[in-house]
Amino acid sequence: MKGFMGRILRVDLTLSTVMVEEPPESIYRKYIGGIGLGGYFLRKETSGSTDPLGPENRLIFMTGPFTGTGIVSSGRHSVVAKSPLTGIWGEADVGGHWGLALKGAGYDGMIVQGSSAHPVCIYIDADSVKIEEAADCWGKDTYETEEILKARYGTDVQVQTIGQAGERQIGLAGIFTDGRDARAAARCGLGAVMGSKKLKAVVVKGNKKPELADAPTLREEMAELVKFQVANRDGMHDHGTSEGLIGNELSGDLPIRNWGRGAWDGKSERISGEEQTKQYHAVSFFCGNCVVGCGRKIRIDQGPYEGVSGSGPEFETVGSIGSNLLVDDLGAICKANELCNRYGLDTISVGGVIGFAMECYEHGLITDKDTNGLKLTWGSPEALIGLVHMIANQEMIGELLGKGVRKAAEKIGGLAKEFAIEVKGLEFPAHEPRVFNSTALGYATSNRGACHLSDMNGRFYEKALAMPEIGLFEKQDPYQVEDKAKMEAGLQNVAGLYDSLKECKFMVWFGVDTSKLLHWLNLVTGWDMSIAEFLLAGERIWNLRRQYDVDCGISRKDDTLPARILTQERGEGGSAHHLPPLNRMLSDYYVVRGWDEFGRPTEETLRRLDLVAED
Amino acid sequence: MKGFMGRILRVDLTLSTVMVEEPPESIYRKYIGGIGLGGYFLRKETSGSTDPLGPENRLIFMTGPFTGTGIVSSGRHSVVAKSPLTGIWGEADVGGHWGLALKGAGYDGMIVQGSSAHPVCIYIDADSVKIEEAADCWGKDTYETEEILKARYGTDVQVQTIGQAGERQIGLAGIFTDGRDARAAARCGLGAVMGSKKLKAVVVKGNKKPELADAPTLREEMAELVKFQVANRDGMHDHGTSEGLIGNELSGDLPIRNWGRGAWDGKSERISGEEQTKQYHAVSFFCGNCVVGCGRKIRIDQGPYEGVSGSGPEFETVGSIGSNLLVDDLGAICKANELCNRYGLDTISVGGVIGFAMECYEHGLITDKDTNGLKLTWGSPEALIGLVHMIANQEMIGELLGKGVRKAAEKIGGLAKEFAIEVKGLEFPAHEPRVFNSTALGYATSNRGACHLSDMNGRFYEKALAMPEIGLFEKQDPYQVEDKAKMEAGLQNVAGLYDSLKECKFMVWFGVDTSKLLHWLNLVTGWDMSIAEFLLAGERIWNLRRQYDVDCGISRKDDTLPARILTQERGEGGSAHHLPPLNRMLSDYYVVRGWDEFGRPTEETLRRLDLVAED
Repeated sequence: MKGFMGRILRVDLTLSTVMVEEPPESIYRKYIGGIGLGGYFLRKETSGSTDPLGPENRLIFMTGPFTGTGIVSSGRHSVVAKSPLTGIWGEADVGGHWGLALKGAGYDGMIVQGSSAHPVCIYIDADSVKIEEAADCWGKDTYETEEILKARYGTDVQVQTIGQAGERQIGLAGIFTDGRDARAAARCGLGAVMGSKKLKAVVVKGNKKPELADAPTLREEMAELVKFQVANRDGMHDHGTSEGLIGNELSGDLPIRNWGRGAWDGKSERISGEEQTKQYHAVSFFCGNCVVGCGRKIRIDQGPYEGVSGSGPEFETVGSIGSNLLVDDLGAICKANELCNRYGLDTISVGGVIGFAMECYEHGLITDKDTNGLKLTWGSPEALIGLVHMIANQEMIGELLGKGVRKAAEKIGGLAKEFAIEVKGLEFPAHEPRVFNSTALGYATSNRGACHLSDMNGRFYEKALAMPEIGLFEKQDPYQVEDKAKMEAGLQNVAGLYDSLKECKFMVWFGVDTSKLLHWLNLVTGWDMSIAEFLLAGERIWNLRRQYDVDCGISRKDDTLPARILTQERGEGGSAHHLPPLNRMLSDYYVVRGWDEFGRPTEETLRRLDLVAED
Repeated sequence: MKGFMGRILRVDLTLSTVMVEEPPESIYRKYIGGIGLGGYFLRKETSGSTDPLGPENRLIFMTGPFTGTGIVSSGRHSVVAKSPLTGIWGEADVGGHWGLALKGAGYDGMIVQGSSAHPVCIYIDADSVKIEEAADCWGKDTYETEEILKARYGTDVQVQTIGQAGERQIGLAGIFTDGRDARAAARCGLGAVMGSKKLKAVVVKGNKKPELADAPTLREEMAELVKFQVANRDGMHDHGTSEGLIGNELSGDLPIRNWGRGAWDGKSERISGEEQTKQYHAVSFFCGNCVVGCGRKIRIDQGPYEGVSGSGPEFETVGSIGSNLLVDDLGAICKANELCNRYGLDTISVGGVIGFAMECYEHGLITDKDTNGLKLTWGSPEALIGLVHMIANQEMIGELLGKGVRKAAEKIGGLAKEFAIEVKGLEFPAHEPRVFNSTALGYATSNRGACHLSDMNGRFYEKALAMPEIGLFEKQDPYQVEDKAKMEAGLQNVAGLYDSLKECKFMVWFGVDTSKLLHWLNLVTGWDMSIAEFLLAGERIWNLRRQYDVDCGISRKDDTLPARILTQERGEGGSAHHLPPLNRMLSDYYVVRGWDEFGRPTEETLRRLDLVAED
């Protein structure tokens, strides 16, 4: 089998056993890799009644057919598990170099099951897989852990680890890789799953490459593409993902004051990528096989946040813990970002819970006695940084906030529920459903809860892009309702392919399109996959996850948005008066999807997608 | 003070005390009577933390300034309490003759507080108020109870009572009056409040009349109006409220199969008012001071339901336990209706929970072992009648269903939540929010939960009527969004006036309009109230109740509709493809109302309405 290693590692931490499985090529072709293949295993091995923090949950790491092939920006991998934050399908996508090393060690993926009685790490190279003591790392942050493990195993290993947040099984804990060039499989609390298994880290080493069906053609095409990308990468390369943040504020596409406001007096400029470059010496860093380099390596060498160094905040972080909290102190944002990276926390959800907490505080639902006197006032750097510590250390109100806004709101009750900006229990990322109808429908229907990645960030296709492969021949008006469901479903299907191939979605801005992905897949594997089969795989991968959610109790009632988003105009800034017409879009969407009135894939749909067998 | 008796009776069942209070005229003028005055006392004396079934809850019966004046169709009274079904504001409006008798005994209203250790009834006449043993009535149905108490107190008393459902504190229990000519204060579970106080019945006798400011003019106007009404009452007089039911089916305005379908193959004709007349000898009966007579007195003298006699099913009943369950057997509907009247159950909510149960059964969420083998198949008369017994007797699944669809769905979980068609915990009445935008906004914002009465049945104003007093100069398109919130809020304010004056809302079809109500109020009281003051009182009465709900934890998130209604086209019948644009209407509505972003009356609004003082 070309393009894959053909081997999946299975580690049981209860039994301390290691096995290797070799799924047939038909499974690879059906689920592609990454999120698709991970989903296949998760669905087969867990169910609606699985305890996300119990030993029966699976923690699945998956590379894809692009990993290790030299295809541009393919240095990503997937993490899949049932989410302890939401109780449903959990996935997180992460860049860096760890996935490359896992495949380099000879494995397409790894399934971790069971749980250890004491802290361990797993070491994997081409010759061995070892479950080893990690007591020396337990209690250490992600940066420290990488240092300890590199000292132990050598500087040529890649380390994926949890911080103290994951150890404590906090709902907002992610899994981190690449040390100070931190890359995070941040969302859905998968770090808590890792912590529940007492698995501190997975250390991998390897530089094997998969055999390719047509390496020379691929190499040739890449050489050309790289040239193009280097010539066209400017904004994102120079200032990272938060470059030109003022544009987001002006269009209304930035969370401000826990999603309550539409403008911030232009203050977003103060926390933009350009300011990171200017103030904190930010320079690019790269995930595997990438020449764009949206990562920002920063260094703060004076002032109250002196000493911060390593990965700087990305757009999502700046939006979530910056504008959303009215914090315009970029140094504080960088400090809080570093703390999240070190503790191993998802900055998006952390921003969501802190925005929630500040609004509760404003309304007297959280008081000084819950915070040990810390004033949770809007815009306060002290509140931001103080709450990150409290969340990570489960102190005072931080313990509750660490469970996410949905559970926190249920506990606090009353008006607090109005402040919980989430879908299916997952906090909003930093794009606005009141600006783009695609974002509204996307957040409402995404399988892991509010997610901007699972639809290729659909708003791009309303701003500038087309995708002829799914019948979208030109950009679509953001407020358009007709055909929005069709566009959204199509984008979701394609996004699942990116996440299965393991290709960075930013590539749509840098000369990559859906047909090209398929072309490369065929060059890599030697398959003769048609665009129809390719898109069908995307649809399958979407429905696989939906069916998982359905088995967890998800239905039509859950495909919605918070009242604030659905019914409250912001009345200022861009898109001041638009409200997303979710009802109509959702009605259309179920028809497009071939789902029944409750949002369940019909038997016919499951049969068409060859998903019945696994039922 | 003219038009009122000026006296409110207060009975404490814990202390066995009776007191009389005489509120100042300013309070009457501010809250008018009925629901307004009842709300004033409820807000003053209970709170968000009051246990609806505890002795601290108040059960308030109120007449209005029209009661006893001879004004057409003013034989109604209000019942107000905190609802045990929903945990928020509870109100129920009821016709008959009981209110007339209470005022005839010299009281505008009665507040019951505390609770008795053993079953009692309260007897009230012009000379005395007595709390008396009612052990002989306890366990008896409403028809039997009336007979027992009339035998005891004489045939010239009016009896308001609960059945076994109220005694058992079942969430769907109402309070009934007029014996076999049953009239029900059905909604919000107020019968359970009465049961919790061990108060079986309130027996009243009296024929005092309030002093009127201008009796001759009023008498003259009524004589003329009565002539007009007798000449124009045909349809409703001849066949009751379910006359011409096929029209509701064809327009899409009928619940079919638990709100899942839009058409019923014309079968609604089989259960229409005309059929009651034809098959069951239905003749009119009247509430106090009414000449229209929408009540239907029926008699079934053969077949499986032989023996049913008394009040026949109204439109709401026929829709809720007929078409909504696909039951087209009119005899069975009449039988189930009689059972509900006897047990003392709300037919609307009973239809809601049975529709819910049938859909759960269809999906395997309720099985034969929950029903003792009773098959809950759509359209089954046996299932309908069997479940009414089970609910009233708290047998098997009936015990859970008696708590209402919201609590039942929470308990059963999963897909069951999709079948719970309610707002704020109150089951839908039998009109369709997917046909009339006013109905959608009305159900979403009504203070007691899904209610078609609290907006003057707004759809009338989309079909045929205008109300110039609130700026609605002609009928409004049902799908129109612009100005819908303004119309709806205006209608709600006026509806509160009807419910406070104690005037039947059907009168809008019989020569009565808002200005005339005010004119009569001034004739009755001698006030010189302006239309502005009158409408402001209506707005006050609405906000009073909203503020009560806010104190109970209600906010924007609760002003919504079930996913099925918001997002699922029915795809057949009238209004097959319309979905109510609730988001936009709600956003407008808060602005019109002067509420903040969370749906709370602002301080300015409360001040403007003179509602701050009570805070």
